[in-house]
Amino acid sequence: MSTSDKADSKTIESLQNLAHRLRILSIDATNKSNSGHPTSCCSMAEIVSVLFFNEMRYKLTAPKDPANDRFILSKGHAAPILYAAWAEAGLFPVSDLDNLRKLDSDLEGHPTPRLNFVDVATGSLGQGLGVAAGMAYVGKYLDSADYRTYCLIGDGEAAEGSIWEALNFASYYQLDNLVAIFDVNRLGQSDPTSLGHDMNTYKNRLESFGFHALVVDGHNIQELLDALAEAKKTSGKPTAILAFCKFPFINSKTFKGKYIPGIEDLEGWHGKPLGSNGPAAIEAIQKLITDLDVKPVPAAPTESNLVPVDASSIKLSDPPAYTKGDKVATRVAYGTALVKLNSDRVIALDCDVKNSTNSEKLRKIDKLRHIECFIAEQNMVGVGIGVGCRHRAIPFCSTFATFFTRAFDQIRMGAISQSNLKFVGSHAGVSIGEDGPSQMGLEDLAMFRTVPNCTVFYPSDAVSTERAVEIAARLPDMCFIRTSRPNSTVIYDNDESFEVGKAKVVKKSDDDKVLVIGACVTLEEALTASKQLAEEGVNIRIMDPFTIKPIDREGIIANAQECGGKIITVEDHYPEGGLGEAVLSAVAECPGIIVKKLAVPRIPRSGPPTALLDMFGISAKSIVEAVKSLN
Amino acid sequence: MSTSDKADSKTIESLQNLAHRLRILSIDATNKSNSGHPTSCCSMAEIVSVLFFNEMRYKLTAPKDPANDRFILSKGHAAPILYAAWAEAGLFPVSDLDNLRKLDSDLEGHPTPRLNFVDVATGSLGQGLGVAAGMAYVGKYLDSADYRTYCLIGDGEAAEGSIWEALNFASYYQLDNLVAIFDVNRLGQSDPTSLGHDMNTYKNRLESFGFHALVVDGHNIQELLDALAEAKKTSGKPTAILAFCKFPFINSKTFKGKYIPGIEDLEGWHGKPLGSNGPAAIEAIQKLITDLDVKPVPAAPTESNLVPVDASSIKLSDPPAYTKGDKVATRVAYGTALVKLNSDRVIALDCDVKNSTNSEKLRKIDKLRHIECFIAEQNMVGVGIGVGCRHRAIPFCSTFATFFTRAFDQIRMGAISQSNLKFVGSHAGVSIGEDGPSQMGLEDLAMFRTVPNCTVFYPSDAVSTERAVEIAARLPDMCFIRTSRPNSTVIYDNDESFEVGKAKVVKKSDDDKVLVIGACVTLEEALTASKQLAEEGVNIRIMDPFTIKPIDREGIIANAQECGGKIITVEDHYPEGGLGEAVLSAVAECPGIIVKKLAVPRIPRSGPPTALLDMFGISAKSIVEAVKSLN
Repeated sequence: MSTSDKADSKTIESLQNLAHRLRILSIDATNKSNSGHPTSCCSMAEIVSVLFFNEMRYKLTAPKDPANDRFILSKGHAAPILYAAWAEAGLFPVSDLDNLRKLDSDLEGHPTPRLNFVDVATGSLGQGLGVAAGMAYVGKYLDSADYRTYCLIGDGEAAEGSIWEALNFASYYQLDNLVAIFDVNRLGQSDPTSLGHDMNTYKNRLESFGFHALVVDGHNIQELLDALAEAKKTSGKPTAILAFCKFPFINSKTFKGKYIPGIEDLEGWHGKPLGSNGPAAIEAIQKLITDLDVKPVPAAPTESNLVPVDASSIKLSDPPAYTKGDKVATRVAYGTALVKLNSDRVIALDCDVKNSTNSEKLRKIDKLRHIECFIAEQNMVGVGIGVGCRHRAIPFCSTFATFFTRAFDQIRMGAISQSNLKFVGSHAGVSIGEDGPSQMGLEDLAMFRTVPNCTVFYPSDAVSTERAVEIAARLPDMCFIRTSRPNSTVIYDNDESFEVGKAKVVKKSDDDKVLVIGACVTLEEALTASKQLAEEGVNIRIMDPFTIKPIDREGIIANAQECGGKIITVEDHYPEGGLGEAVLSAVAECPGIIVKKLAVPRIPRSGPPTALLDMFGISAKSIVEAVKSLN
Repeated sequence: MSTSDKADSKTIESLQNLAHRLRILSIDATNKSNSGHPTSCCSMAEIVSVLFFNEMRYKLTAPKDPANDRFILSKGHAAPILYAAWAEAGLFPVSDLDNLRKLDSDLEGHPTPRLNFVDVATGSLGQGLGVAAGMAYVGKYLDSADYRTYCLIGDGEAAEGSIWEALNFASYYQLDNLVAIFDVNRLGQSDPTSLGHDMNTYKNRLESFGFHALVVDGHNIQELLDALAEAKKTSGKPTAILAFCKFPFINSKTFKGKYIPGIEDLEGWHGKPLGSNGPAAIEAIQKLITDLDVKPVPAAPTESNLVPVDASSIKLSDPPAYTKGDKVATRVAYGTALVKLNSDRVIALDCDVKNSTNSEKLRKIDKLRHIECFIAEQNMVGVGIGVGCRHRAIPFCSTFATFFTRAFDQIRMGAISQSNLKFVGSHAGVSIGEDGPSQMGLEDLAMFRTVPNCTVFYPSDAVSTERAVEIAARLPDMCFIRTSRPNSTVIYDNDESFEVGKAKVVKKSDDDKVLVIGACVTLEEALTASKQLAEEGVNIRIMDPFTIKPIDREGIIANAQECGGKIITVEDHYPEGGLGEAVLSAVAECPGIIVKKLAVPRIPRSGPPTALLDMFGISAKSIVEAVKSLN
């Protein structure tokens, strides 16, 4: 430890007093709301006090100023003490804490960006560090700024593999502007953690994962200050502060014996307000406070010229340049479009499949703008969320569509976080062929459709793929773009324009018997089917939805009504939650419209793509049969 | 290293020859299928040779005999060498390898249990070790048998957090019958791995995670034999063998200079058949083989009396014992039912929320049958899949419904693995109240509906919950049971019987204007709404679906037709992929039936449960309004 940064005793005293004050506010607020996690707050009071009133540099008038240091409370259930810290700092009245968890207050049970001082929602455990690593990556490599990122992690959530993915990522990219603080309070919700207070094992694990690891007494202000000072001086690797903490709040060294009877370090108190024990606890803690008049003032950040990315100005530098009828895989068009977006703040992330998803095209022109996340999809999504925070960049994550299932919880939380993150999933459906079911995206549309505010694109050719990428870059929320492995026929002119929620009718006549809705490989099968059927005198109308969410409700209903109220959907996806059910929801309240769904009905297998389309009932042959069955 | 187990030179020579033979078969098969991963096979040839022809004990006539040692190929893309090993061992003709990846062959791109020697499907990376840990847990603690479990892991997939969750689990439970072998060949699909050949860091990481870690030359037969012997002698902790391997196949120590030009240890060869380089490679390797006539014979396992669990005989020891009209949370009824199942092979797994999901009830009567997985949902599912393999046990995994999103990829692979695993997700929907959106299951029905062969239960009261648990235990495939946090009114008699795919009409008259379908909290709201509507002279029919997949198509259509073709669905779930769309799919081809969906339309917030049901449009009030809008 450095000794040159010894804080004066007055500073230490005031930070200790503040820590106790934060404990009292946490106990009081959770007692008033009759729910919440006071003990989980109490274990980290000194850490929060030191961070918010000594270490971190931020503008109280602008908590999300891009120049400010960042703080992520990964253990989101400790929200009350985060709220208390900002209230004590002066962002809002302390009396607002009385509204914790109430319907009309944004001081919710777990933090969300409805609050102006929260970058990302937390509450599903183990997710904060990946986000923090994304912020730190941007700070170090894109912004080249001196803001720092702090992430507070519970010891219980350190069992989540996503934490270890993030640690590996942070040390690989030498994120020395990142500090991970572990609140090792020994107790989980229902039992002690697997490591308890075994600080040596924590230290060995963190060091083996490339961190500068420091074990401190989490209730000792000086030790915390020293560790943070040492972190600042450490270059080339991130720092982990492993804080030995007591579950509720009493420092056994400093205040030995002054336990609140029945609560200190006992199991069974997770997530419970202290109730009738509250007043005694508050009284006991109050007695430890010597003086609250002297309150340290947080330091301001370095002035900076960091400007938010203006997504509205992003566009393709050149329009698509294909020849109708040529064969181009939509995954290839994705890479082409990515490179053509006219912003050096468009960032690609990938999990070691960049040569399959085609995101490597961006890496080839700018390695800093392509973040290789190795085979760790959860962390890629976390990093992506962090990269997109505070309008620093527009991140595009890519992997095989089905491997986004690995990160569904991160994606779900990303929506609550109001994240700006684009997902591009390649290798959709059985059309990938020989690699077999483990590699086939057959539930991705269902998954992304459930994500609030997520636009789901399923472009059918290279032209529409490029436009999907362009539109996604400009949208403020999460987007998913589904791409396919095989080559698809270019069906649109290069100057065709596309809109979210607007389908294209790609074939029609005055005498259509059925509306067939498909996308990409199944749209191509529908076109093949239409030729066969036309030879037999049966005309069908074919629609390309472009976006599955939102889906073009008006367009579908109007066209269906012109086709006798008969719709066939055909999708390279399982029958649940995909294109078929999106269409069903669109026409749910229209009497007289029926929908026949063609989809992959069971677990597929390895084989040639065309044989699989046939075997699983989504080829031209199946479409022809379905049309005939309705006529 | 022990020196007492030195193999004789003939054994070593024959194992080395076999390794080369397996290389040749892998290169040849992938060349014939024109796709696949020959290089990833070649790096592990000596490991496979030593395991299959010296270390492991198994009956070739019964590859899944419960007494056999277990082998999990976590790096599933190396399937060809797994197939080659079993062919060489004599399970099927070597000529079958020519059918690799063909439509009519079960020798698929990645292994699945369609093959009688595969316990679980692999191919989504990082999942094998959790499964292996589950098998080892059963072997050590439930079977008390001496079979051992081996898991071969790629170094690329070691970046997945799920690996580190499994390592933590395995050492915590002292699974000394488990050996994790890492094939450290340095190269991923698109780039070198983050650690390359840094064997020291691997060793430090594995040791810090509680493993006995041994670094060996992955192409040295003697070193591999010694390491495996040492693993057998190591008690109280699992062993990790960190094998330094070359990407394709040549041992740089032993065969220095004998590289196949242009391929050895170069990037860019992942997942590609050798094509025109194949014959030269095969010729070069062939020259290294001294003699193939002497082939070691695998040892047989210890005879055992391990009998498969007979799920068909499992039932509740006593029928449900509730009083109609009482208030009991379905999550509580889950715990009650779990304890009542009359088999000591029913196992519960939980992620530190056992006091919320109520799985702790089983722990209280039998700690060995309740596996605390700490906060690591992916690993819990992996362990559960392993526990269920070879009919050793019936595993029930529980956590908050929304946290199963963390393990969607494991669940997806579990279906391909034909797993017998039950998921019980509590805390469904906004009805949890103050904890806020991060804790609310609002996409769980959509997720589990996409899973092939997964039965999705959504019981509405304590009686039906107990029966759902009983039925799930007897079903051979995966099941999901959705439970809720608040107390629900008991609406069924204790002797009511339930069936998969059979809904209950809980209220009807001869003059019903609308069929309302809801479950649990929304069923209760529908009953409240019906009373209000009855006062205004409007009768509605109310249906409890019991299972959402399969859903009672006939029952829904018949009842809807008796209600003027009008259906209202109401669900504590997002609008996509849940109850509403399940109903829509059921009536999709019926003209004249319309469906109005009530669901949670956007990201909810913290607040009292009843206020949230109202705010998000799924309370009795909204149902009354919806009924009126249709009449």
